[in-house]
Amino acid sequence: MTHEVVDTLVSPESLQLVDTLISPQGRLEVLSKAEVAKLLETGKAGLYDVFRKCALAVLNTGSDIDDGKELLERYASFDISILQRERGIKLDIRNAPGNAFVDGKMIRGIHEHLFSVLRDIVFVNFDVTDNPKFDLTRSEGITDAVFHILRNANVLQPQRNPNLVVCWGGHSISRIEYNYTKKVGYALGLREMDICTGCGPGAMKGPMKGATIGHSKQRLGSGRYLGISEPGIIAAESPNPIVNDLVIMPDIEKRLEAFVRTGHGIVVFPGGAGTAEEILYILGILLHPDNAEIPFPLVFTGPASARDYFTQIDAFLGVTLGVEAQRRYQIIIDDPDAVARAMQAGVQEVRAFRKANSDAYYYNWRLKIDHEFQKPFKPTHENMRGLDLHRGIPTHLLAANLRRAFSGVVAGNVKEEGIRAIEQYGKYEISGEAEIMGPMDALLASFVEQSRMKLPGKAYTPCYTIVQ
Amino acid sequence: MTHEVVDTLVSPESLQLVDTLISPQGRLEVLSKAEVAKLLETGKAGLYDVFRKCALAVLNTGSDIDDGKELLERYASFDISILQRERGIKLDIRNAPGNAFVDGKMIRGIHEHLFSVLRDIVFVNFDVTDNPKFDLTRSEGITDAVFHILRNANVLQPQRNPNLVVCWGGHSISRIEYNYTKKVGYALGLREMDICTGCGPGAMKGPMKGATIGHSKQRLGSGRYLGISEPGIIAAESPNPIVNDLVIMPDIEKRLEAFVRTGHGIVVFPGGAGTAEEILYILGILLHPDNAEIPFPLVFTGPASARDYFTQIDAFLGVTLGVEAQRRYQIIIDDPDAVARAMQAGVQEVRAFRKANSDAYYYNWRLKIDHEFQKPFKPTHENMRGLDLHRGIPTHLLAANLRRAFSGVVAGNVKEEGIRAIEQYGKYEISGEAEIMGPMDALLASFVEQSRMKLPGKAYTPCYTIVQ
Amino acid sequence: MTHEVVDTLVSPESLQLVDTLISPQGRLEVLSKAEVAKLLETGKAGLYDVFRKCALAVLNTGSDIDDGKELLERYASFDISILQRERGIKLDIRNAPGNAFVDGKMIRGIHEHLFSVLRDIVFVNFDVTDNPKFDLTRSEGITDAVFHILRNANVLQPQRNPNLVVCWGGHSISRIEYNYTKKVGYALGLREMDICTGCGPGAMKGPMKGATIGHSKQRLGSGRYLGISEPGIIAAESPNPIVNDLVIMPDIEKRLEAFVRTGHGIVVFPGGAGTAEEILYILGILLHPDNAEIPFPLVFTGPASARDYFTQIDAFLGVTLGVEAQRRYQIIIDDPDAVARAMQAGVQEVRAFRKANSDAYYYNWRLKIDHEFQKPFKPTHENMRGLDLHRGIPTHLLAANLRRAFSGVVAGNVKEEGIRAIEQYGKYEISGEAEIMGPMDALLASFVEQSRMKLPGKAYTPCYTIVQ
Amino acid sequence: MTHEVVDTLVSPESLQLVDTLISPQGRLEVLSKAEVAKLLETGKAGLYDVFRKCALAVLNTGSDIDDGKELLERYASFDISILQRERGIKLDIRNAPGNAFVDGKMIRGIHEHLFSVLRDIVFVNFDVTDNPKFDLTRSEGITDAVFHILRNANVLQPQRNPNLVVCWGGHSISRIEYNYTKKVGYALGLREMDICTGCGPGAMKGPMKGATIGHSKQRLGSGRYLGISEPGIIAAESPNPIVNDLVIMPDIEKRLEAFVRTGHGIVVFPGGAGTAEEILYILGILLHPDNAEIPFPLVFTGPASARDYFTQIDAFLGVTLGVEAQRRYQIIIDDPDAVARAMQAGVQEVRAFRKANSDAYYYNWRLKIDHEFQKPFKPTHENMRGLDLHRGIPTHLLAANLRRAFSGVVAGNVKEEGIRAIEQYGKYEISGEAEIMGPMDALLASFVEQSRMKLPGKAYTPCYTIVQ
Repeated sequence: MTHEVVDTLVSPESLQLVDTLISPQGRLEVLSKAEVAKLLETGKAGLYDVFRKCALAVLNTGSDIDDGKELLERYASFDISILQRERGIKLDIRNAPGNAFVDGKMIRGIHEHLFSVLRDIVFVNFDVTDNPKFDLTRSEGITDAVFHILRNANVLQPQRNPNLVVCWGGHSISRIEYNYTKKVGYALGLREMDICTGCGPGAMKGPMKGATIGHSKQRLGSGRYLGISEPGIIAAESPNPIVNDLVIMPDIEKRLEAFVRTGHGIVVFPGGAGTAEEILYILGILLHPDNAEIPFPLVFTGPASARDYFTQIDAFLGVTLGVEAQRRYQIIIDDPDAVARAMQAGVQEVRAFRKANSDAYYYNWRLKIDHEFQKPFKPTHENMRGLDLHRGIPTHLLAANLRRAFSGVVAGNVKEEGIRAIEQYGKYEISGEAEIMGPMDALLASFVEQSRMKLPGKAYTPCYTIVQ
Repeated sequence: MTHEVVDTLVSPESLQLVDTLISPQGRLEVLSKAEVAKLLETGKAGLYDVFRKCALAVLNTGSDIDDGKELLERYASFDISILQRERGIKLDIRNAPGNAFVDGKMIRGIHEHLFSVLRDIVFVNFDVTDNPKFDLTRSEGITDAVFHILRNANVLQPQRNPNLVVCWGGHSISRIEYNYTKKVGYALGLREMDICTGCGPGAMKGPMKGATIGHSKQRLGSGRYLGISEPGIIAAESPNPIVNDLVIMPDIEKRLEAFVRTGHGIVVFPGGAGTAEEILYILGILLHPDNAEIPFPLVFTGPASARDYFTQIDAFLGVTLGVEAQRRYQIIIDDPDAVARAMQAGVQEVRAFRKANSDAYYYNWRLKIDHEFQKPFKPTHENMRGLDLHRGIPTHLLAANLRRAFSGVVAGNVKEEGIRAIEQYGKYEISGEAEIMGPMDALLASFVEQSRMKLPGKAYTPCYTIVQ
Repeated sequence: MTHEVVDTLVSPESLQLVDTLISPQGRLEVLSKAEVAKLLETGKAGLYDVFRKCALAVLNTGSDIDDGKELLERYASFDISILQRERGIKLDIRNAPGNAFVDGKMIRGIHEHLFSVLRDIVFVNFDVTDNPKFDLTRSEGITDAVFHILRNANVLQPQRNPNLVVCWGGHSISRIEYNYTKKVGYALGLREMDICTGCGPGAMKGPMKGATIGHSKQRLGSGRYLGISEPGIIAAESPNPIVNDLVIMPDIEKRLEAFVRTGHGIVVFPGGAGTAEEILYILGILLHPDNAEIPFPLVFTGPASARDYFTQIDAFLGVTLGVEAQRRYQIIIDDPDAVARAMQAGVQEVRAFRKANSDAYYYNWRLKIDHEFQKPFKPTHENMRGLDLHRGIPTHLLAANLRRAFSGVVAGNVKEEGIRAIEQYGKYEISGEAEIMGPMDALLASFVEQSRMKLPGKAYTPCYTIVQ
Repeated sequence: MTHEVVDTLVSPESLQLVDTLISPQGRLEVLSKAEVAKLLETGKAGLYDVFRKCALAVLNTGSDIDDGKELLERYASFDISILQRERGIKLDIRNAPGNAFVDGKMIRGIHEHLFSVLRDIVFVNFDVTDNPKFDLTRSEGITDAVFHILRNANVLQPQRNPNLVVCWGGHSISRIEYNYTKKVGYALGLREMDICTGCGPGAMKGPMKGATIGHSKQRLGSGRYLGISEPGIIAAESPNPIVNDLVIMPDIEKRLEAFVRTGHGIVVFPGGAGTAEEILYILGILLHPDNAEIPFPLVFTGPASARDYFTQIDAFLGVTLGVEAQRRYQIIIDDPDAVARAMQAGVQEVRAFRKANSDAYYYNWRLKIDHEFQKPFKPTHENMRGLDLHRGIPTHLLAANLRRAFSGVVAGNVKEEGIRAIEQYGKYEISGEAEIMGPMDALLASFVEQSRMKLPGKAYTPCYTIVQ
């Protein structure tokens, strides 16, 4: 298989298991008795299971397992418990993956991540869930909860100038593409920009490594590598230890909201179908009429080998969402410095806009995120049938529906659950224009061809029929 | 009048009013939209009134007004509002007392205090009140709330060794006594101990000033001057700007609990009736059977002129609570170094005990505080009649009741409300032994004689009768 | 005796002797083998004697001995040696004065001072003396050497704004005057100004203590308390441990030059004849024609009780040096805030002037110091006879000569050596105007009357005759 | 050509010239008037020429020019001057290479390097040269001067534990070998070791880049990347901006002494003939009888492709210096973790040894460096004839002579000056054993074959004859 990241700086995984006892360092954790009790409690009401799962994912960094179930099975004997000591809590860890250690000592970045996981799980449970101050059934309540979680994680730093670039893209990309993400990160780092990613491997790691070298040359000891994850994905995208600010949001939608409200711009690297969905997510937001005046730099970029990928996406967006959507992004091929300069210019505009409007630099309150984007979408036959995919509807809603359709079609072709549903109930019935569904098929077929999407069968065939 | 502190380093109060716009410095404040809205809302549901009152008290530091009502009247035009800006909030302040400024610029210590007030008022309202995680009707729930408020204020610092000495005593003491508190603070500071007080003038300020010089000679840039206040008292005891950690607890009982759970020992300087009440409070806790094994250094000290004051208190405690209570404290007259050495030795014991028991250094979870001590006491005729003041009951309960009786008798002699109640309903009827009430009268009479308690009339006369 | 500083915060001197072994902290010392050898070498070529003497003076802080000879005799068994260890040098100290320790542990400020003494003695010996790059026979060479010594001591800090106020005045002043120096220091500290003094007790300590409280309220962790001493005076003026930058200049003239080239303004508190000499020194410099345009704030101040002292000095200066000299200073009585505001305004002018001229903020290169002021003056009969004291000569030279005459006349009345010389050779013959010498006598007589100068006999009588 | 480093993170060199004015940042420079004057003075006595040359080399980082003459020619219009300003000096730079800038702003690492260059050139000139305290004609005097230069550059830090690994090897190596040096650096960085190199590209840059990532994962903000250069080589080996401690020693011999006295162990990567000379240098020192007991970890390492290179060197050392020399190093092929573990173990031994002997951690005073190794060697015909190359002489002297012979033979084959000398005077006459000279020829031939040494002609032929 040609498409994988072999990060040669990380030694091959050993199956060695390690026991250790660690204390918080740097940022300290002080827990109440009730909080500790809750963390040690198993079962639905307790937090032990989710804490153990996330902790294991954090410790599994650098491994080639990217499947949560497999991970839990391989480290079935893994255990983590909390001890109260005179200087606060300690974590008692048994049978942890050897990868997290150097000569028996836990890598300090991973050490920090464990306490970040702890902090966020406790906070969400104690201060957000059930707190009558947050109405999680309303859009404002969700936005407020995202804010509180990020603030508690010390992510919202009012003294910093806007400089946080979110990098999206595949976690499983070719070495050429991976090296390119490093070069972009380096160019961003040299320009004193910070990096935020989903914190796994591939396009989520490369920019941080590059930026580390750039920051080092610029003597930026305070360089920030923000990783935003959530319990459902963290096993597949173990945070790399360069991440020096890790936040665990409670679910995927709040994670996406955290990206767009804290980042000052987004760079999209090549990926597969997931990356295309992320593109539809951000465009769906930016196309909302309320956001028309809000500057938000958005760049799609990759090495020469990624030209086709972005050309096809651009064509698809042009046909479906039109030139209005295309005006919202730039495509830059094989030019890391140009990417960095474009982000820098865009972030300057963001700064000027927020200053003029007394908007916070650290949280994009003004950005309208439709409640639709804050709620999960399950690609059942019923939900798929309910999608409206015609160019007559407002483009931001069409973008939202396209994203869902995309998600469903990918599931129907690739994911076990989706494939079985198709076998059982037949093809999805989608109420869409052929002028939209055709290009979507073409796009997915090209992903397969470029090995960006793995099908169980050989070729891509549509798993839906168009209905009126 | 002989009993006053003339702190010559603070210039005499001007009536000059100042307008200013300030941003957080150092510790930054990032508020959500909902939080800002709540702070700006007046009326019962809103936080504006309490915030304005506390802010005014903070700005009034160094003044000779120690009455909240008078303060609010004098600065009737004072206004404070919150502005959202690109780097977080700013405070827009109008008609503030000129004392808080040097040549028109707010003293940075006071500046910090304003944001501490803001932080605590917001936190208590959003995360404690109404949050189902805290059951404030139960002792554990109260202790947990105190913990969360202190943790949010960054007061609980697990990496510090136990070294926090609480200083209690009068806010209106003679210059000789005030200078003595400075010397004790200096001796503590030279020994690298930190100071915690109620953060007003007199015995709450002197130890901090002395410790500042001691810390400076020891190059302790991290010296800590913790002030714990609450909205009902802050106007009378404006925090002095040396305080570099200010916490506003929601009420007097939680404030007292914060003192005894964060402090590692207590020094009591001379004061008046209030100081005697504090002594009964801490002894009531230490005499609880559950606390018998818990080390807790407690020193009563003053210059030679305070010898009588402590001799009389000691005699009273001996008669009422017995030798068991007397074993819990030392009296040291006119020897600052001996006080500092006694505290140092005591704190060492505290450290050893907590280490041996894996108790937190930063919060005394193990100390049993009876629910009785966590609830307010109103000295109505009915409540006074309900007190049991016989030496047959457990000493820790007797201490609690004595404290209440003391509080009621002082009110009946000194406070407007109490005096009127006596005029209206006649003397309190107290169910107590003459062997207890007699010494109490003697003690109060001696306070009057030493000018430590000001009566509207000339001499002290009991405002109660003993009943069965 | 009324004129003494009883600093009550320092415990009375004990004769307890302490042994200890200390390592550098904070600022570290790395010495070469040759440097260590030189420090351990006794005799003329070695540095041991001067190092031991200065170290003992530093350790003797807070004591009431202010006589170097008495000090060396009292601590005859005191010894200090240097050990090479894996982390650099350690100092092995035997029979040190107990005052420098709290419960057996050296006060950290004093600890730092010992290493400052070491640093300066080594640097002067290795890099200045005998280095052909410094021509110490020329004015420029001396100024350059002063610069190098201060730079090596890390005193010259280009990133700081001008804010260094030099405070001069007596080391043995009344408590009222001492308290006043604290208030001035407090007012300066609140305005974020730093303090530089000769680093002994009295007017050299008060401003630093006051500024410490002021800086603390302004949260200035970086407040600077610069002490400049020299081996000949350090025993009489032991640095107080608040001093956090101590420099040992090689002699009194370089010490004075260091004051005027690093300070941005000078406050003169009351003192005795020594203070009057300092006033003549700074006026002699400021009156040099080359310095006419250079701003240099100079304030004489004291409490009401010092009004006469400064009135008499002012009158003397008016008569001798004229209104030109009087324009160079302000006299402010009993108003610490006014002093601080005057210095602040003056320092602002200094800043503007240096910025306009690209002059360094941290070293006043432009100030002309006549070679005469850089050389020592011995009040022999011959030198006294050589002084020209007529108002016809340029005022800056007259100021220089007055200073010398003053110095000689004081010696003839007060110092053992001077008194004996007068007994042996008769009165000094001075070639001066009666209109100058008369006021000088009056001034000295008033010092005696105010107990600012102690005579072996009762009244002041001139020890000179006027000749042509 | 296959052997080159293409560091893809650095953009291709532009010929753009940039003007700028910079101030010191972080570590500040305060110069005296005399120092500035000397720096601006051209000609032999002045420092301008050497300063300009070194500054240009620093600014030329990342370029492919590695020839000082070519560099000076290409940037003939480059100029640098020193301005005195109120906050110290500024550098006024004209026509600087564009590579040193990102979007017109100088990279901060390079910015720092310019001030390091300035600092060292000034210090060597003012405090070392001509200072009678250093006798540069004696071995001790040279060692002392090296110490003073390093101390002034703040390189000697007594609080750090021994952890400084010197990396030697070619500046022009293959990408595979370059990537391997990164992996070794990463493994060292993860183990909290710091890196010291000659600070150019290739094997001098890779370990620093790898260590940067390792340190980042271990949250070591204080990671140290020490570069030691000298005016004669700096143009060929421009410091890469990761270097955060740059020292310019006055000549090549003092540079080598600085490496072995500050480093706690050495890793040798593949290189060419220069690397072989460095190996002979360190072995010559370690084989001195006085150094027999001194631990000094020494590892030769490279990827599989470098196996032959080290095998041949090992064979040569075995034949010439014997098993005694071979005991002093380990060869580790293709195992970065093993290299890091070996260094870690070795450095632990160094630490234990120095602690036991009270030797400084930061400067290896005890290591005997024969005066022969501190003096330059010119490979003239006369000097070459004077070499004694027989196995009868002490091995450390044989190593010294081998190094010189090696140096001469390389010059005779490769360097313009050497080739001409051979043409003019005929082959060198060397008084050596055939058993030594034969293996040397074989080694040099293998370097040519592996493209590690470029000959003007095709094949290697000896440029000497063996004489008695």
